[in-house]
Amino acid sequence: MPAFSRLVRFLARDGRTYYGDAILPRGVTDISKAKQARIVKGDIFGSHDVTDQVADIRLLLAPLAPEDVRTVRCLGLNYAAHAREAKMAIPRNPVLFVSYKPATSLTGPTDPIPVHRLAQEGTGLDYECELVAIIGKKCVDVPESQALDYVLGYAVGNDISHRDWQLKGGGGQWSLGKGFDGWAPYGPGIVSSSLIKDPQTLKIYTKLNGKVMQESSTSDMIFNVKQTIAFLSQGTTLLPGDVIFTGTPQGVGMGRDPQLWLKDGDVVEVGLEQVGTCTNKVEFDTKSSSKL
Amino acid sequence: MPAFSRLVRFLARDGRTYYGDAILPRGVTDISKAKQARIVKGDIFGSHDVTDQVADIRLLLAPLAPEDVRTVRCLGLNYAAHAREAKMAIPRNPVLFVSYKPATSLTGPTDPIPVHRLAQEGTGLDYECELVAIIGKKCVDVPESQALDYVLGYAVGNDISHRDWQLKGGGGQWSLGKGFDGWAPYGPGIVSSSLIKDPQTLKIYTKLNGKVMQESSTSDMIFNVKQTIAFLSQGTTLLPGDVIFTGTPQGVGMGRDPQLWLKDGDVVEVGLEQVGTCTNKVEFDTKSSSKL
Repeated sequence: MPAFSRLVRFLARDGRTYYGDAILPRGVTDISKAKQARIVKGDIFGSHDVTDQVADIRLLLAPLAPEDVRTVRCLGLNYAAHAREAKMAIPRNPVLFVSYKPATSLTGPTDPIPVHRLAQEGTGLDYECELVAIIGKKCVDVPESQALDYVLGYAVGNDISHRDWQLKGGGGQWSLGKGFDGWAPYGPGIVSSSLIKDPQTLKIYTKLNGKVMQESSTSDMIFNVKQTIAFLSQGTTLLPGDVIFTGTPQGVGMGRDPQLWLKDGDVVEVGLEQVGTCTNKVEFDTKSSSKL
Repeated sequence: MPAFSRLVRFLARDGRTYYGDAILPRGVTDISKAKQARIVKGDIFGSHDVTDQVADIRLLLAPLAPEDVRTVRCLGLNYAAHAREAKMAIPRNPVLFVSYKPATSLTGPTDPIPVHRLAQEGTGLDYECELVAIIGKKCVDVPESQALDYVLGYAVGNDISHRDWQLKGGGGQWSLGKGFDGWAPYGPGIVSSSLIKDPQTLKIYTKLNGKVMQESSTSDMIFNVKQTIAFLSQGTTLLPGDVIFTGTPQGVGMGRDPQLWLKDGDVVEVGLEQVGTCTNKVEFDTKSSSKL
Protein backbone atom coordinates (compact mmCIF):
# COMPACT_ATOMS: atom_id res chain seq x y z
CA MET A 1 0.00 0.00 0.00
CA PRO A 2 1.58 3.33 -1.02
CA ALA A 3 2.24 5.84 1.75
CA PHE A 4 1.02 8.78 -0.35
CA SER A 5 -2.55 9.88 -1.01
CA ARG A 6 -2.11 11.93 -4.17
CA LEU A 7 1.22 11.39 -5.89
CA VAL A 8 2.47 14.28 -7.97
CA ARG A 9 5.73 14.89 -9.79
CA PHE A 10 6.61 18.51 -10.03
CA LEU A 11 9.15 21.17 -10.74
CA ALA A 12 9.73 22.99 -7.47
CA ARG A 13 10.67 26.61 -6.91
CA ASP A 14 14.24 25.45 -6.27
CA GLY A 15 14.41 24.32 -9.90
CA ARG A 16 14.52 20.62 -9.02
CA THR A 17 12.05 17.86 -9.84
CA TYR A 18 10.45 15.85 -7.04
CA TYR A 19 7.84 13.25 -6.34
CA GLY A 20 5.44 14.57 -3.72
CA ASP A 21 2.16 14.02 -1.93
CA ALA A 22 -0.08 16.92 -2.98
CA ILE A 23 -1.43 19.18 -0.24
CA LEU A 24 -4.97 20.30 -1.00
CA PRO A 25 -7.20 22.76 0.85
CA ARG A 26 -10.07 21.15 2.78
CA GLY A 27 -12.93 20.17 0.45
CA VAL A 28 -10.81 20.42 -2.72
CA THR A 29 -10.08 17.22 -4.63
CA ASP A 30 -8.71 18.58 -7.94
CA ILE A 31 -4.98 17.94 -7.70
CA SER A 32 -4.28 20.62 -10.30
CA LYS A 33 -5.13 23.16 -7.57
CA ALA A 34 -2.26 22.02 -5.36
CA LYS A 35 0.32 24.70 -4.60
CA GLN A 36 2.48 22.59 -2.32
CA ALA A 37 3.42 18.98 -1.74
CA ARG A 38 5.22 16.91 0.84
CA ILE A 39 8.30 15.44 -0.80
CA VAL A 40 8.20 11.66 -1.28
CA LYS A 41 11.53 9.85 -0.98
CA GLY A 42 12.31 6.31 -2.06
CA ASP A 43 10.80 3.95 -4.59
CA ILE A 44 7.22 4.98 -5.35
CA PHE A 45 6.44 1.33 -6.25
CA GLY A 46 8.21 -0.01 -3.19
CA SER A 47 9.62 1.33 0.01
CA HIS A 48 9.09 5.08 0.24
CA ASP A 49 8.27 7.80 2.75
CA VAL A 50 6.18 10.92 2.69
CA THR A 51 8.56 13.33 4.42
CA ASP A 52 7.73 16.46 6.43
CA GLN A 53 9.58 18.53 3.86
CA VAL A 54 7.07 20.77 2.05
CA ALA A 55 7.94 22.21 -1.36
CA ASP A 56 6.19 24.80 -3.50
CA ILE A 57 4.92 23.48 -6.81
CA ARG A 58 5.97 25.57 -9.78
CA LEU A 59 4.73 23.15 -12.44
CA LEU A 60 3.02 19.75 -12.28
CA LEU A 61 4.71 17.21 -14.56
CA ALA A 62 3.55 13.86 -15.95
CA PRO A 63 3.01 11.92 -12.71
CA LEU A 64 5.53 9.17 -13.49
CA ALA A 65 9.13 9.92 -14.38
CA PRO A 66 9.84 8.64 -17.91
CA GLU A 67 12.24 6.01 -16.56
CA ASP A 68 9.49 4.70 -14.24
CA VAL A 69 7.04 4.02 -17.09
CA ARG A 70 6.87 0.61 -18.71
CA THR A 71 4.15 -0.32 -21.23
CA VAL A 72 1.26 2.03 -22.06
CA ARG A 73 -1.91 0.20 -23.11
CA CYS A 74 -5.10 1.82 -24.40
CA LEU A 75 -8.53 0.24 -24.53
CA GLY A 76 -10.85 1.13 -27.35
CA LEU A 77 -14.65 1.12 -27.47
CA ASN A 78 -14.97 0.49 -23.75
CA TYR A 79 -18.06 2.60 -23.11
CA ALA A 80 -21.31 1.35 -24.59
CA ALA A 81 -22.53 4.73 -25.83
CA HIS A 82 -19.15 5.48 -27.44
CA ALA A 83 -19.11 2.13 -29.25
CA ARG A 84 -22.50 3.08 -30.70
CA GLU A 85 -21.36 6.52 -31.89
CA ALA A 86 -18.26 4.95 -33.47
CA LYS A 87 -20.72 2.71 -35.37
CA MET A 88 -18.81 -0.37 -34.25
CA ALA A 89 -20.41 -3.37 -32.64
CA ILE A 90 -20.32 -3.45 -28.85
CA PRO A 91 -17.56 -5.92 -28.03
CA ARG A 92 -18.79 -9.25 -26.82
CA ASN A 93 -16.96 -10.66 -23.82
CA PRO A 94 -14.00 -11.21 -23.99
CA VAL A 95 -13.20 -8.95 -26.94
CA LEU A 96 -11.10 -6.10 -25.66
CA PHE A 97 -9.65 -3.62 -28.13
CA VAL A 98 -6.11 -3.12 -26.93
CA SER A 99 -3.61 -0.83 -28.58
CA TYR A 100 -0.40 0.69 -27.30
CA LYS A 101 1.19 4.10 -27.09
CA PRO A 102 4.95 4.47 -26.74
CA ALA A 103 5.95 5.95 -23.37
CA THR A 104 7.22 8.99 -25.29
CA SER A 105 3.61 10.00 -25.89
CA LEU A 106 3.04 10.63 -22.18
CA THR A 107 3.15 14.25 -21.10
CA GLY A 108 2.09 16.48 -18.24
CA PRO A 109 -1.27 17.87 -17.19
CA THR A 110 -0.69 21.36 -18.62
CA ASP A 111 1.82 20.67 -21.38
CA PRO A 112 0.93 21.69 -24.93
CA ILE A 113 -0.11 18.93 -27.33
CA PRO A 114 2.31 19.18 -30.27
CA VAL A 115 0.82 18.36 -33.67
CA HIS A 116 3.48 17.26 -36.12
CA ARG A 117 3.06 18.27 -39.78
CA LEU A 118 2.23 14.65 -40.60
CA ALA A 119 -0.77 14.79 -38.26
CA GLN A 120 -1.90 18.10 -39.72
CA GLU A 121 -2.63 16.27 -42.97
CA GLY A 122 -6.01 14.66 -43.50
CA THR A 123 -8.70 15.13 -40.90
CA GLY A 124 -9.45 13.67 -37.56
CA LEU A 125 -7.53 15.17 -34.66
CA ASP A 126 -9.65 14.16 -31.69
CA TYR A 127 -9.78 14.11 -27.87
CA GLU A 128 -10.65 11.19 -25.58
CA CYS A 129 -11.00 11.66 -21.82
CA GLU A 130 -10.12 8.48 -19.98
CA LEU A 131 -9.67 7.01 -16.55
CA VAL A 132 -6.02 5.96 -16.33
CA ALA A 133 -5.00 3.10 -14.03
CA ILE A 134 -1.35 2.73 -13.04
CA ILE A 135 -0.08 -0.70 -12.09
CA GLY A 136 1.87 -0.68 -8.82
CA LYS A 137 2.89 -4.31 -8.36
CA LYS A 138 4.02 -7.02 -10.76
CA CYS A 139 1.24 -9.44 -11.56
CA VAL A 140 0.23 -12.19 -13.94
CA ASP A 141 -2.96 -14.28 -14.14
CA VAL A 142 -4.68 -12.15 -11.53
CA PRO A 143 -8.26 -13.05 -10.69
CA GLU A 144 -10.79 -10.21 -10.91
CA SER A 145 -11.36 -10.34 -7.17
CA GLN A 146 -7.74 -9.36 -6.49
CA ALA A 147 -7.01 -7.19 -9.53
CA LEU A 148 -7.44 -3.81 -7.83
CA ASP A 149 -4.81 -4.75 -5.24
CA TYR A 150 -2.22 -4.32 -8.00
CA VAL A 151 -3.26 -0.76 -8.87
CA LEU A 152 -1.04 2.04 -7.57
CA GLY A 153 -3.71 4.62 -8.27
CA TYR A 154 -5.71 6.54 -10.84
CA ALA A 155 -5.26 9.59 -13.02
CA VAL A 156 -7.19 11.21 -15.84
CA GLY A 157 -5.75 11.22 -19.34
CA ASN A 158 -6.42 12.42 -22.85
CA ASP A 159 -5.85 9.72 -25.48
CA ILE A 160 -5.26 12.12 -28.39
CA SER A 161 -5.97 10.33 -31.66
CA HIS A 162 -5.82 11.17 -35.33
CA ARG A 163 -8.70 9.25 -36.89
CA ASP A 164 -7.28 9.10 -40.43
CA TRP A 165 -3.95 7.79 -39.18
CA GLN A 166 -5.57 5.56 -36.58
CA LEU A 167 -8.10 3.92 -38.86
CA LYS A 168 -6.50 4.13 -42.30
CA GLY A 169 -2.86 5.25 -42.31
CA GLY A 170 -1.64 2.44 -40.09
CA GLY A 171 -3.20 -0.28 -42.18
CA GLY A 172 -5.90 -0.76 -39.55
CA GLN A 173 -3.50 -0.83 -36.62
CA TRP A 174 -4.46 2.03 -34.30
CA SER A 175 -1.12 2.75 -32.67
CA LEU A 176 0.30 4.97 -35.39
CA GLY A 177 -2.43 7.57 -35.09
CA LYS A 178 -2.17 7.64 -31.31
CA GLY A 179 1.55 7.43 -30.69
CA PHE A 180 2.97 10.84 -31.50
CA ASP A 181 5.15 12.61 -28.93
CA GLY A 182 3.02 14.34 -26.33
CA TRP A 183 -0.28 12.75 -27.37
CA ALA A 184 -1.08 11.33 -23.95
CA PRO A 185 -1.34 14.10 -21.38
CA TYR A 186 -2.21 12.61 -18.01
CA GLY A 187 -2.32 13.57 -14.39
CA PRO A 188 -2.61 15.94 -12.65
CA GLY A 189 -1.43 13.32 -10.16
CA ILE A 190 -2.10 9.74 -9.18
CA VAL A 191 -4.75 9.26 -6.51
CA SER A 192 -3.88 6.21 -4.44
CA SER A 193 -6.13 3.20 -4.77
CA SER A 194 -6.48 3.43 -0.98
CA LEU A 195 -8.50 6.64 -1.55
CA ILE A 196 -10.41 5.44 -4.63
CA LYS A 197 -11.56 2.00 -3.65
CA ASP A 198 -14.19 1.83 -6.40
CA PRO A 199 -13.04 3.34 -9.70
CA GLN A 200 -16.42 2.69 -11.36
CA THR A 201 -18.42 5.53 -9.83
CA LEU A 202 -16.51 8.58 -11.07
CA LYS A 203 -17.82 11.38 -13.28
CA ILE A 204 -15.59 11.98 -16.31
CA TYR A 205 -15.75 14.76 -18.88
CA THR A 206 -14.04 16.73 -21.66
CA LYS A 207 -14.40 20.46 -22.24
CA LEU A 208 -13.23 22.00 -25.51
CA ASN A 209 -12.55 25.72 -25.22
CA GLY A 210 -14.74 25.68 -22.12
CA LYS A 211 -17.69 23.83 -23.68
CA VAL A 212 -18.64 20.35 -22.42
CA MET A 213 -18.13 17.74 -25.17
CA GLN A 214 -18.00 14.47 -23.22
CA GLU A 215 -19.81 13.87 -19.93
CA SER A 216 -20.26 10.43 -18.52
CA SER A 217 -19.42 8.17 -15.63
CA THR A 218 -16.93 5.34 -15.32
CA SER A 219 -19.96 3.23 -14.34
CA ASP A 220 -20.68 3.02 -18.09
CA MET A 221 -17.48 1.14 -18.86
CA ILE A 222 -18.09 -2.18 -20.63
CA PHE A 223 -14.99 -3.80 -19.09
CA ASN A 224 -14.42 -2.35 -15.66
CA VAL A 225 -10.91 -1.88 -14.27
CA LYS A 226 -10.74 -5.17 -12.44
CA GLN A 227 -12.02 -7.15 -15.43
CA THR A 228 -9.53 -5.32 -17.65
CA ILE A 229 -6.55 -6.14 -15.43
CA ALA A 230 -7.62 -9.75 -15.01
CA PHE A 231 -7.98 -10.07 -18.77
CA LEU A 232 -4.76 -8.30 -19.76
CA SER A 233 -2.69 -10.20 -17.20
CA GLN A 234 -3.50 -13.61 -18.63
CA GLY A 235 -0.15 -14.99 -19.69
CA THR A 236 1.18 -11.43 -19.84
CA THR A 237 3.05 -10.00 -16.89
CA LEU A 238 2.00 -6.49 -15.90
CA LEU A 239 4.78 -4.45 -14.31
CA PRO A 240 4.95 -1.56 -11.88
CA GLY A 241 4.79 1.51 -14.11
CA ASP A 242 2.47 -0.04 -16.68
CA VAL A 243 -0.13 2.56 -17.59
CA ILE A 244 -3.62 1.61 -18.78
CA PHE A 245 -5.89 4.11 -20.55
CA THR A 246 -9.28 2.48 -20.02
CA GLY A 247 -11.26 3.89 -22.94
CA THR A 248 -13.39 6.96 -23.56
CA PRO A 249 -17.13 7.65 -23.29
CA GLN A 250 -19.37 9.07 -26.02
CA GLY A 251 -18.99 12.60 -27.33
CA VAL A 252 -15.70 12.42 -29.23
CA GLY A 253 -15.35 14.66 -32.28
CA MET A 254 -15.56 11.67 -34.63
CA GLY A 255 -19.00 10.74 -33.28
CA ARG A 256 -20.60 14.18 -33.59
CA ASP A 257 -22.78 15.45 -36.43
CA PRO A 258 -21.13 17.34 -38.01
CA GLN A 259 -17.80 15.85 -37.00
CA LEU A 260 -15.51 18.21 -35.14
CA TRP A 261 -11.72 18.13 -35.10
CA LEU A 262 -9.20 19.84 -32.87
CA LYS A 263 -7.44 22.84 -34.40
CA ASP A 264 -4.38 24.87 -33.62
CA GLY A 265 -4.86 26.87 -30.42
CA ASP A 266 -7.77 24.83 -29.04
CA VAL A 267 -7.72 24.23 -25.30
CA VAL A 268 -8.89 20.78 -24.16
CA GLU A 269 -9.69 19.98 -20.56
CA VAL A 270 -10.30 16.44 -19.34
CA GLY A 271 -11.57 15.88 -15.84
CA LEU A 272 -12.19 12.99 -13.49
CA GLU A 273 -14.02 13.18 -10.18
CA GLN A 274 -11.76 12.83 -7.10
CA VAL A 275 -8.68 13.24 -9.31
CA GLY A 276 -8.78 16.58 -11.10
CA THR A 277 -8.12 18.00 -14.51
CA CYS A 278 -5.58 18.15 -17.32
CA THR A 279 -5.78 21.28 -19.47
CA ASN A 280 -3.72 21.23 -22.63
CA LYS A 281 -3.40 23.54 -25.60
CA VAL A 282 -3.19 22.18 -29.14
CA GLU A 283 -0.09 23.54 -30.88
CA PHE A 284 0.43 22.86 -34.56
CA ASP A 285 4.12 22.46 -35.21
CA THR A 286 5.26 24.66 -38.07
CA LYS A 287 8.89 23.51 -38.03
CA SER A 288 8.51 19.78 -38.55
CA SER A 289 8.08 18.56 -42.08
CA SER A 290 6.36 15.49 -43.41
CA LYS A 291 8.83 13.07 -44.94
CA LEU A 292 6.19 11.36 -47.05
CA MET B 1 29.76 4.07 -32.53
CA PRO B 2 29.67 1.10 -30.12
CA ALA B 3 33.02 -0.41 -29.12
CA PHE B 4 31.70 -3.99 -29.40
CA SER B 5 31.26 -6.06 -32.54
CA ARG B 6 28.76 -8.68 -31.32
CA LEU B 7 27.03 -7.72 -28.10
CA VAL B 8 25.79 -10.61 -26.00
CA ARG B 9 24.26 -10.78 -22.55
CA PHE B 10 25.00 -14.00 -20.78
CA LEU B 11 25.05 -15.99 -17.63
CA ALA B 12 28.68 -16.76 -16.91
CA ARG B 13 30.19 -19.75 -15.15
CA ASP B 14 30.57 -17.59 -12.05
CA GLY B 15 26.77 -17.35 -11.85
CA ARG B 16 26.67 -13.67 -12.72
CA THR B 17 25.12 -11.93 -15.71
CA TYR B 18 27.28 -9.77 -17.99
CA TYR B 19 27.23 -7.85 -21.21
CA GLY B 20 30.04 -9.06 -23.43
CA ASP B 21 31.56 -8.97 -26.89
CA ALA B 22 31.26 -12.51 -28.25
CA ILE B 23 34.45 -14.30 -29.23
CA LEU B 24 33.94 -16.45 -32.34
CA PRO B 25 36.30 -18.87 -34.06
CA ARG B 26 37.67 -17.62 -37.37
CA GLY B 27 35.12 -18.02 -40.17
CA VAL B 28 32.16 -18.48 -37.80
CA THR B 29 29.49 -15.76 -37.71
CA ASP B 30 26.68 -17.49 -35.76
CA ILE B 31 26.85 -15.88 -32.33
CA SER B 32 25.03 -18.85 -30.78
CA LYS B 33 28.31 -20.78 -31.22
CA ALA B 34 30.21 -18.41 -28.92
CA LYS B 35 31.71 -20.08 -25.82
CA GLN B 36 33.41 -16.99 -24.45
CA ALA B 37 33.06 -13.23 -24.47
CA ARG B 38 35.07 -10.19 -23.45
CA ILE B 39 33.15 -8.43 -20.71
CA VAL B 40 31.71 -5.04 -21.69
CA LYS B 41 31.60 -2.42 -18.94
CA GLY B 42 29.66 0.84 -18.96
CA ASP B 43 26.57 2.04 -20.78
CA ILE B 44 26.03 -0.04 -23.92
CA PHE B 45 24.21 2.94 -25.48
CA GLY B 46 26.86 5.41 -24.39
CA SER B 47 30.33 5.29 -22.95
CA HIS B 48 31.51 1.71 -22.55
CA ASP B 49 34.61 -0.43 -22.92
CA VAL B 50 35.30 -3.91 -24.15
CA THR B 51 37.65 -5.11 -21.43
CA ASP B 52 40.38 -7.76 -21.65
CA GLN B 53 38.47 -9.85 -19.12
CA VAL B 54 37.25 -13.03 -20.83
CA ALA B 55 34.35 -14.98 -19.35
CA ASP B 56 32.92 -18.38 -20.22
CA ILE B 57 29.34 -18.28 -21.48
CA ARG B 58 27.04 -20.71 -19.69
CA LEU B 59 23.80 -19.39 -21.25
CA LEU B 60 23.05 -16.63 -23.76
CA LEU B 61 20.23 -14.36 -22.55
CA ALA B 62 18.00 -11.87 -24.36
CA PRO B 63 20.62 -9.43 -25.64
CA LEU B 64 19.22 -6.38 -23.82
CA ALA B 65 18.63 -6.36 -20.07
CA PRO B 66 14.89 -5.83 -19.39
CA GLU B 67 15.59 -2.42 -17.84
CA ASP B 68 17.42 -1.35 -21.02
CA VAL B 69 14.45 -2.04 -23.30
CA ARG B 70 11.98 0.71 -24.17
CA THR B 71 9.25 0.24 -26.80
CA VAL B 72 9.00 -2.91 -28.94
CA ARG B 73 7.45 -2.27 -32.34
CA CYS B 74 6.54 -4.91 -34.92
CA LEU B 75 5.92 -4.35 -38.59
CA GLY B 76 3.37 -6.47 -40.38
CA LEU B 77 3.16 -7.47 -44.03
CA ASN B 78 6.57 -6.08 -44.82
CA TYR B 79 7.68 -8.69 -47.34
CA ALA B 80 5.84 -8.71 -50.65
CA ALA B 81 5.49 -12.49 -50.91
CA HIS B 82 4.21 -12.70 -47.31
CA ALA B 83 1.60 -10.01 -47.94
CA ARG B 84 0.37 -12.15 -50.86
CA GLU B 85 0.16 -15.37 -48.81
CA ALA B 86 -1.72 -13.47 -46.06
CA LYS B 87 -4.18 -12.48 -48.80
CA MET B 88 -3.86 -8.86 -47.83
CA ALA B 89 -3.13 -6.08 -50.28
CA ILE B 90 0.52 -5.06 -50.53
CA PRO B 91 0.74 -1.84 -48.55
CA ARG B 92 1.01 1.26 -50.66
CA ASN B 93 3.56 3.80 -49.47
CA PRO B 94 3.29 5.05 -46.75
CA VAL B 95 1.06 2.41 -45.15
CA LEU B 96 3.10 0.62 -42.53
CA PHE B 97 1.40 -1.91 -40.29
CA VAL B 98 2.77 -1.17 -36.86
CA SER B 99 1.85 -3.07 -33.74
CA TYR B 100 3.55 -3.36 -30.40
CA LYS B 101 4.68 -6.05 -28.05
CA PRO B 102 5.19 -5.37 -24.36
CA ALA B 103 8.85 -5.67 -23.32
CA THR B 104 7.81 -8.65 -21.18
CA SER B 105 7.40 -10.68 -24.38
CA LEU B 106 11.14 -10.51 -25.10
CA THR B 107 13.12 -13.59 -24.21
CA GLY B 108 16.43 -15.25 -24.94
CA PRO B 109 17.73 -17.18 -27.93
CA THR B 110 17.28 -20.64 -26.39
CA ASP B 111 14.47 -20.02 -23.88
CA PRO B 112 11.30 -22.06 -24.20
CA ILE B 113 8.24 -20.34 -25.66
CA PRO B 114 5.53 -20.67 -23.01
CA VAL B 115 2.00 -21.11 -24.35
CA HIS B 116 -0.60 -20.00 -21.84
CA ARG B 117 -3.88 -21.94 -21.68
CA LEU B 118 -5.62 -18.97 -23.27
CA ALA B 119 -3.40 -19.30 -26.34
CA GLN B 120 -3.98 -23.04 -26.51
CA GLU B 121 -7.62 -22.31 -27.36
CA GLY B 122 -8.63 -21.80 -30.98
CA THR B 123 -6.04 -22.33 -33.68
CA GLY B 124 -3.22 -20.35 -35.08
CA LEU B 125 0.01 -20.52 -33.10
CA ASP B 126 2.59 -19.40 -35.65
CA TYR B 127 6.25 -18.46 -36.12
CA GLU B 128 7.69 -15.40 -37.88
CA CYS B 129 11.43 -15.01 -38.44
CA GLU B 130 12.40 -11.35 -38.52
CA LEU B 131 15.35 -9.04 -38.76
CA VAL B 132 15.38 -7.06 -35.51
CA ALA B 133 16.87 -3.56 -35.41
CA ILE B 134 17.83 -2.03 -32.07
CA ILE B 135 17.90 1.75 -31.76
CA GLY B 136 21.09 3.04 -30.15
CA LYS B 137 20.63 6.79 -30.10
CA LYS B 138 17.65 9.03 -29.46
CA CYS B 139 16.19 10.38 -32.68
CA VAL B 140 13.15 12.12 -34.11
CA ASP B 141 12.33 13.19 -37.68
CA VAL B 142 15.39 11.39 -39.04
CA PRO B 143 15.88 11.52 -42.79
CA GLU B 144 16.34 8.15 -44.54
CA SER B 145 19.91 9.04 -45.46
CA GLN B 146 20.90 9.23 -41.77
CA ALA B 147 18.53 6.63 -40.27
CA LEU B 148 21.04 3.78 -40.02
CA ASP B 149 23.36 5.98 -37.93
CA TYR B 150 20.87 5.57 -35.06
CA VAL B 151 20.92 1.77 -35.12
CA LEU B 152 22.95 0.04 -32.43
CA GLY B 153 22.87 -3.24 -34.32
CA TYR B 154 20.84 -6.18 -35.54
CA ALA B 155 19.52 -9.44 -34.16
CA VAL B 156 17.17 -12.14 -35.38
CA GLY B 157 13.83 -12.63 -33.69
CA ASN B 158 10.73 -14.78 -33.73
CA ASP B 159 7.51 -12.76 -33.61
CA ILE B 160 5.34 -15.55 -32.21
CA SER B 161 1.70 -14.88 -33.05
CA HIS B 162 -1.62 -16.51 -32.36
CA ARG B 163 -3.69 -15.85 -35.47
CA ASP B 164 -7.10 -16.22 -33.82
CA TRP B 165 -6.17 -13.80 -31.05
CA GLN B 166 -4.28 -11.51 -33.38
CA LEU B 167 -6.96 -11.18 -36.03
CA LYS B 168 -10.20 -11.81 -34.14
CA GLY B 169 -9.83 -11.91 -30.34
CA GLY B 170 -8.39 -8.42 -30.05
CA GLY B 171 -11.14 -6.77 -32.04
CA GLY B 172 -8.79 -6.42 -34.98
CA GLN B 173 -5.91 -5.01 -32.94
CA TRP B 174 -2.97 -7.37 -33.35
CA SER B 175 -1.14 -6.78 -30.12
CA LEU B 176 -3.17 -9.14 -27.95
CA GLY B 177 -2.25 -12.20 -30.00
CA LYS B 178 1.43 -11.28 -30.06
CA GLY B 179 2.05 -9.97 -26.57
CA PHE B 180 2.20 -12.99 -24.28
CA ASP B 181 5.19 -13.45 -21.98
CA GLY B 182 8.09 -14.97 -23.86
CA TRP B 183 6.60 -14.61 -27.34
CA ALA B 184 9.52 -12.67 -28.76
CA PRO B 185 12.71 -14.69 -28.55
CA TYR B 186 15.55 -12.68 -30.05
CA GLY B 187 19.30 -12.73 -30.23
CA PRO B 188 21.60 -14.61 -30.09
CA GLY B 189 23.36 -11.25 -29.81
CA ILE B 190 23.36 -7.83 -31.42
CA VAL B 191 25.74 -7.40 -34.33
CA SER B 192 26.98 -3.83 -34.40
CA SER B 193 25.84 -1.67 -37.30
CA SER B 194 29.55 -1.06 -37.90
CA LEU B 195 29.77 -4.71 -39.03
CA ILE B 196 26.46 -4.83 -40.89
CA LYS B 197 26.48 -1.68 -42.93
CA ASP B 198 23.71 -2.86 -45.26
CA PRO B 199 20.93 -4.80 -43.49
CA GLN B 200 19.09 -5.45 -46.78
CA THR B 201 21.26 -8.27 -48.17
CA LEU B 202 20.89 -10.92 -45.46
CA LYS B 203 19.46 -14.40 -45.83
CA ILE B 204 16.75 -15.15 -43.28
CA TYR B 205 14.96 -18.41 -42.51
CA THR B 206 12.84 -20.49 -40.14
CA LYS B 207 13.25 -24.21 -39.53
CA LEU B 208 10.51 -26.15 -37.74
CA ASN B 209 11.78 -29.40 -36.21
CA GLY B 210 14.71 -29.14 -38.61
CA LYS B 211 12.64 -28.56 -41.77
CA VAL B 212 12.92 -25.25 -43.65
CA MET B 213 9.62 -23.34 -43.53
CA GLN B 214 10.65 -19.78 -44.39
CA GLU B 215 13.63 -18.90 -46.57
CA SER B 216 14.08 -15.44 -47.96
CA SER B 217 16.33 -12.40 -47.97
CA THR B 218 15.95 -9.03 -46.28
CA SER B 219 16.26 -7.62 -49.79
CA ASP B 220 12.58 -8.52 -50.20
CA MET B 221 11.42 -6.12 -47.51
CA ILE B 222 8.84 -3.61 -48.75
CA PHE B 223 9.99 -0.91 -46.30
CA ASN B 224 13.69 -1.30 -45.70
CA VAL B 225 15.21 -0.48 -42.32
CA LYS B 226 16.15 3.09 -43.12
CA GLN B 227 12.72 3.87 -44.56
CA THR B 228 11.10 2.27 -41.52
CA ILE B 229 13.10 4.34 -39.04
CA ALA B 230 12.54 7.55 -40.99
CA PHE B 231 8.83 6.81 -41.09
CA LEU B 232 8.41 5.77 -37.47
CA SER B 233 10.44 8.71 -36.16
CA GLN B 234 8.15 11.33 -37.65
CA GLY B 235 6.86 13.22 -34.65
CA THR B 236 7.66 10.19 -32.48
CA THR B 237 10.92 10.08 -30.60
CA LEU B 238 12.76 6.76 -30.83
CA LEU B 239 14.87 5.97 -27.81
CA PRO B 240 17.99 3.90 -27.14
CA GLY B 241 16.62 0.44 -26.36
CA ASP B 242 13.68 0.66 -28.75
CA VAL B 243 13.41 -2.67 -30.54
CA ILE B 244 11.94 -2.97 -34.04
CA PHE B 245 10.83 -6.32 -35.45
CA THR B 246 10.82 -5.54 -39.16
CA GLY B 247 8.34 -8.08 -40.50
CA THR B 248 8.48 -11.64 -41.75
CA PRO B 249 8.82 -13.21 -45.21
CA GLN B 250 6.51 -15.79 -46.79
CA GLY B 251 6.18 -19.29 -45.44
CA VAL B 252 4.37 -18.74 -42.14
CA GLY B 253 2.00 -21.49 -40.99
CA MET B 254 -1.04 -19.33 -41.71
CA GLY B 255 -0.06 -19.01 -45.37
CA ARG B 256 0.50 -22.71 -46.06
CA ASP B 257 -1.97 -25.17 -47.60
CA PRO B 258 -2.94 -26.91 -45.42
CA GLN B 259 -2.28 -24.39 -42.65
CA LEU B 260 0.16 -25.57 -40.02
CA TRP B 261 0.26 -24.51 -36.39
CA LEU B 262 2.92 -24.90 -33.72
CA LYS B 263 2.26 -27.62 -31.17
CA ASP B 264 3.61 -28.55 -27.78
CA GLY B 265 7.22 -29.75 -28.05
CA ASP B 266 7.94 -28.24 -31.46
CA VAL B 267 11.41 -26.75 -31.90
CA VAL B 268 11.59 -23.55 -33.96
CA GLU B 269 14.85 -22.13 -35.23
CA VAL B 270 15.09 -18.69 -36.80
CA GLY B 271 18.30 -17.62 -38.48
CA LEU B 272 19.79 -14.52 -39.99
CA GLU B 273 23.00 -14.35 -42.01
CA GLN B 274 25.94 -12.71 -40.18
CA VAL B 275 23.98 -12.83 -36.91
CA GLY B 276 23.12 -16.40 -36.04
CA THR B 277 20.19 -18.39 -34.75
CA CYS B 278 17.59 -18.58 -32.00
CA THR B 279 16.32 -22.07 -31.25
CA ASN B 280 13.29 -22.27 -28.99
CA LYS B 281 11.03 -25.08 -27.87
CA VAL B 282 7.26 -24.61 -27.69
CA GLU B 283 6.01 -25.49 -24.21
CA PHE B 284 2.29 -25.65 -23.56
CA ASP B 285 1.63 -24.47 -20.04
CA THR B 286 -0.51 -26.94 -18.14
CA LYS B 287 -0.66 -24.93 -14.92
CA SER B 288 -2.16 -21.67 -16.13
CA SER B 289 -5.90 -21.51 -16.53
CA SER B 290 -8.00 -19.43 -18.85
CA LYS B 291 -10.09 -16.93 -16.87
CA LEU B 292 -12.63 -16.54 -19.65
